[in-house]
Amino acid sequence: MRRIHLIIEYDGTNYAGWQRQSNALAVQQVVEEKLARLTGESIVVHGASRTDAGVHALGQSVHFDTESRIPGDKFSYALNTMLPPDIRVIHSKETDFGFHARFSAVGKRYRYLFWDAPHAGALNRFTHAHSIYRLDDALMYREAQALIGTHDFAAFAASRSVVKDTVRTIWKADVKRSDSEVSLVVEGNGFLYNMVRIIAGTLQSVGSGKLEPGALARAISTGDRLDLGVTAPAKGLTLMEVYYALPDSAKATEE
Amino acid sequence: MRRIHLIIEYDGTNYAGWQRQSNALAVQQVVEEKLARLTGESIVVHGASRTDAGVHALGQSVHFDTESRIPGDKFSYALNTMLPPDIRVIHSKETDFGFHARFSAVGKRYRYLFWDAPHAGALNRFTHAHSIYRLDDALMYREAQALIGTHDFAAFAASRSVVKDTVRTIWKADVKRSDSEVSLVVEGNGFLYNMVRIIAGTLQSVGSGKLEPGALARAISTGDRLDLGVTAPAKGLTLMEVYYALPDSAKATEE
Repeated sequence: MRRIHLIIEYDGTNYAGWQRQSNALAVQQVVEEKLARLTGESIVVHGASRTDAGVHALGQSVHFDTESRIPGDKFSYALNTMLPPDIRVIHSKETDFGFHARFSAVGKRYRYLFWDAPHAGALNRFTHAHSIYRLDDALMYREAQALIGTHDFAAFAASRSVVKDTVRTIWKADVKRSDSEVSLVVEGNGFLYNMVRIIAGTLQSVGSGKLEPGALARAISTGDRLDLGVTAPAKGLTLMEVYYALPDSAKATEE
Repeated sequence: MRRIHLIIEYDGTNYAGWQRQSNALAVQQVVEEKLARLTGESIVVHGASRTDAGVHALGQSVHFDTESRIPGDKFSYALNTMLPPDIRVIHSKETDFGFHARFSAVGKRYRYLFWDAPHAGALNRFTHAHSIYRLDDALMYREAQALIGTHDFAAFAASRSVVKDTVRTIWKADVKRSDSEVSLVVEGNGFLYNMVRIIAGTLQSVGSGKLEPGALARAISTGDRLDLGVTAPAKGLTLMEVYYALPDSAKATEE
């Protein structure tokens, strides 16, 4: 038996998210079906992040165990001949049994993209949330700094979340503009269900003048979901990277 | 009668190009159908560039004449409620009858995008041409400088082109890398049919070591299509902007 580690990129537009569902097609199911065809085994893959329906990934991290003798670095090529073009294995390698895609992860990086032009874009319609209001990206940057540090993010969990420990550490929350694209990048040791989309929606509300600055700090302190903005649409969100060693940006925060 | 000027963005993936076809759906036809519904008139729109099937536009420039009393700046909003999401009017205004979207144009800017990672991307599969070979972007930049100036680009015209005057002026040919994305941006007073895709394909061949540097200069001098690389795939190409006054970059070249 060998353990294989995959990095997977996908366009989440046409999937019910990462995790296998009984009533809709998820990315996990597609990958498992192709692995079954490739190896002849019934394989369960373990993904680091349960991305929601419509959420994308440039760096979903996945592992599985197999009896197959296919070299680790060849799984990417073999799977990509079978996978649909909106799912690509961009890296594969053999790893040790101490590695678990989800439990070995020490952090994640997510990106949220807004497009604040008068009209929505055509080419970016599946990757950017359109804001008809101009966003004050400098204000959003300042607002986002309240996230940095170790906080109880109870207010940032979707109501259907059942997780008990809502304390997380965020070491990076960056907001940048390039033309009409405003991007939010957050890095932390973990994120509650819908947390990044709630952060994005709140920053959008603050950036368009609909919510008073200080909302994020207030919600961290009160624990009240009502202090925050709406959950931003799934399509703007992309899982960028799963960390198995803390990046320098996280170490800098720790000092 | 009034003349209206539109700037249109479209994802060319699902269209047979800009120009109306008898046997396939083109962007022009979709825009004309929505304008007919909006105004009750039979309207012909004039586009500045006949983009090919699969080619995108962030700044297609279009004009049409109408008896409608809809204010010029409201056409964008009205049309966008009717157009499919892969076609967006991003700007509209009333203009004078001396303006013609195609004949008043003094230049155009095109962008071509490559992705030179071992595996194709999932999220960028409709906008980037995948190169399994690593591209030497610095070499491609140097090679592209041969385009600058006024030359007879006869070698760069697709064989089905019937145009007689093949002299064009190019004032910008830039190649840049950002991670695995290599982008080519060219600006000039006009481009022959498939010219940018032939330039892109040639730069890709030079950048991957399959064609000797100097190919562009040779082809300009010999006029021989065989001195150039293959025509790069349509999906990597985007019409960025149509100029009605020379940009500063063009003026700098003239001095």
